[in-house]
Amino acid sequence: MEPPQRISPNLALEEYVAHRLSMGQTMVNLGLGEARLPVHPALLERLAAAAPANSYGPVAGTEPARRAAAGYFTRRRLPTSPTQIVMGPGSKPVLFALLTAIRGDVILPRPCWMSYAAQTGLAGHRAIRVPVPPRCGGVPDPVALQEMIKDARSRGHHPRVLVLTNPDNPTGTSAGPDIVRQVCEIAGAEDLVVISDEIYRDIPHDPALPQLSPAEVLPARTVVLTGLSKSLALGGWRIGLARFPAGEWGRRLHDQVVAIASEMWSSVAAPMQEVAAYALSEPPEIVDHLEASARLHASVATAAHHAVTMVKARCEAPQGGFYVYPDLEPARAILAAKGITGAPQLESHLLRHYGIAVLGGHHFGDRVDGLRFRAATSQLYGANAEEQWAALRDPDPASLPYVAKQLDLLRCALIEMTEEAMPLTSAASGSAQQVHH
Amino acid sequence: MEPPQRISPNLALEEYVAHRLSMGQTMVNLGLGEARLPVHPALLERLAAAAPANSYGPVAGTEPARRAAAGYFTRRRLPTSPTQIVMGPGSKPVLFALLTAIRGDVILPRPCWMSYAAQTGLAGHRAIRVPVPPRCGGVPDPVALQEMIKDARSRGHHPRVLVLTNPDNPTGTSAGPDIVRQVCEIAGAEDLVVISDEIYRDIPHDPALPQLSPAEVLPARTVVLTGLSKSLALGGWRIGLARFPAGEWGRRLHDQVVAIASEMWSSVAAPMQEVAAYALSEPPEIVDHLEASARLHASVATAAHHAVTMVKARCEAPQGGFYVYPDLEPARAILAAKGITGAPQLESHLLRHYGIAVLGGHHFGDRVDGLRFRAATSQLYGANAEEQWAALRDPDPASLPYVAKQLDLLRCALIEMTEEAMPLTSAASGSAQQVHH
Repeated sequence: MEPPQRISPNLALEEYVAHRLSMGQTMVNLGLGEARLPVHPALLERLAAAAPANSYGPVAGTEPARRAAAGYFTRRRLPTSPTQIVMGPGSKPVLFALLTAIRGDVILPRPCWMSYAAQTGLAGHRAIRVPVPPRCGGVPDPVALQEMIKDARSRGHHPRVLVLTNPDNPTGTSAGPDIVRQVCEIAGAEDLVVISDEIYRDIPHDPALPQLSPAEVLPARTVVLTGLSKSLALGGWRIGLARFPAGEWGRRLHDQVVAIASEMWSSVAAPMQEVAAYALSEPPEIVDHLEASARLHASVATAAHHAVTMVKARCEAPQGGFYVYPDLEPARAILAAKGITGAPQLESHLLRHYGIAVLGGHHFGDRVDGLRFRAATSQLYGANAEEQWAALRDPDPASLPYVAKQLDLLRCALIEMTEEAMPLTSAASGSAQQVHH
Repeated sequence: MEPPQRISPNLALEEYVAHRLSMGQTMVNLGLGEARLPVHPALLERLAAAAPANSYGPVAGTEPARRAAAGYFTRRRLPTSPTQIVMGPGSKPVLFALLTAIRGDVILPRPCWMSYAAQTGLAGHRAIRVPVPPRCGGVPDPVALQEMIKDARSRGHHPRVLVLTNPDNPTGTSAGPDIVRQVCEIAGAEDLVVISDEIYRDIPHDPALPQLSPAEVLPARTVVLTGLSKSLALGGWRIGLARFPAGEWGRRLHDQVVAIASEMWSSVAAPMQEVAAYALSEPPEIVDHLEASARLHASVATAAHHAVTMVKARCEAPQGGFYVYPDLEPARAILAAKGITGAPQLESHLLRHYGIAVLGGHHFGDRVDGLRFRAATSQLYGANAEEQWAALRDPDPASLPYVAKQLDLLRCALIEMTEEAMPLTSAASGSAQQVHH
């Protein structure tokens, strides 16, 4: 048991940004991984209609919610019974209950979403970090994974759980079917449990993006996590869920997680479960909304990718979700001259000099002396519901003035930061002005 | 870390009862500790109006919710700043975060609410149970507490946290100011942290019931837990909160709990926080509703107390909340002849022979060979919202036919169980009929 000493950086930054905005300061907020879109009217109606539901209800979730969830997975090549589902107030508590139920060390891709490591410590387990392959995140590099397991076992450790994220946070990339198969093959051979976080699954940038769930490859040992926070922008409604494997082992793990849930959170707010039952049944208006949201996320993340790759940066093109994860390594010498020698300085420089809030790569387990940061591009869709709806409907949202302006600020800041420093005092105004002529 | 292997008995029984009811069986459900009343219309309106709120928001809770909570405590002789408040999706997760943040053994009254012990194990701590005094529950007997601490220390254990419940679950009693002061004096001298669960505080059976919070006696070391599940019948809306002590130590504990919360549940559903901000500000319509609810709970719990004390049972008169906790010890010989030698058999006999669902005292830490059970009398207010509203408005709800009928079934079952057994086969019908003449 290792309680975190500080608030999760993602949420801490958001509170800081909210404070600065409330002081009237201009900010480009690319910090919090929140799909900043309004709630679809059909969901508002459902919540209002469900308000009289005030019973605790079953710990695993109401029957309608679990039935809808089973249908959701079944439509994604994962035949599922409602008895395989556990609902939670967000996917965070469900993941924590899983990590509490399963003993052993937890293998995490490096980088990965920050709460995996924090929860691993909180559940009393050791985290083993394995670098991701060159072109995508969310999965460990298969060769490195195999070596790391061997190494861990030789030290007397017990690698037991492997957490995957696809599409990925923070890199915004998606691991292709080949690599998913390779990683699952190792997990199967090494008797690992796979926890597959698929919360960004319904936000593919290309509708034809091939998505293979580890639960298709390793059905008996994979737990799938998801929720409505990202796809339907319902972070503040706290609706998450897990799909457990069919079969005896999956049933036992399910029962353990339900036992833990019964002591930890009792049940998901009953009106929210009625919303889940509706949304997870995927009626046409919700499917349309999901598709429009995915188009918007794709368009703006791609524009942000263009912005960051106009400077001396490396950055994989985003494929799902709403993140880009640039690496300013090519500009290391220039940045070092400005005192930026690692991710914390990079994060702090962007915030203090440009009012741009991002999260340094170190929060995701990447090297503290690296020069990576995550930008959550979903924060750019406007300051109010009206602008956000307009962005959702626009065929080219990145060119909307309020979106384009913020992308410009990001691009200009990066250009200025990665330019050669002008001599300021000694060579003085003369030479500096010559450059401008 | 000791994960529970089974679902919390309270919730498990409820699922079983729901199943039996769905099969068309008649049940008297006195199992789940849920205030089975409809949601007040003003709360329904607030939730509907708050539906557009879909941001995660601050981990500790929104400013309006925390400000309202601070006012709530301030009106109860506990001057409070919003910075002392942490909201949670129910009080369960907040308690778990507290037990995770504070290291050391946890002292629990015997009997007490079942989740305290389960969470203590889950957080990796040792539970030390101390019997309650003769006339009330929710606090340990001061003499036994002092001895138990000495004994624990001599064994090298580290008693550190004391959990109190007032008014109490399962006994339905309330510890008076004198005993609260005595217990807090020991806690202070022994450097314990007091977690005071006051979730039933707004359900006093007599509005003049003297209620002294441990936070008034030991302000620097007491955390108060509460929520809207019981007082406003919002169990299924998952709104809980904690009040931390002012001062440096309280601030540090608050920050640790917020850090844990940020990894465990992120925040309370945003629309629910708008409901909390409204309800905790205690507008007149909500105060009226609270008072009507308390009158109903008092009336039916008192009637249930009369019912169970008509037989060979001991039972303290309930003073708050909606429980009675009878002890059939005086009928031990008669029950033993029927194979009922402990709380599990008692629970099972009531369920199988009479369709009456209660929880045996063993679930609350009482002896497994004891003959106690908890009856949640809030389950008797009717089968639908109409009957429940009628019960709320009736000056004598226990005499409403649908309430009285269930109380009768309970009384008759207890009379039959605690009667001398009739000779069935040998002495046959003759003598049995004589008794009836």
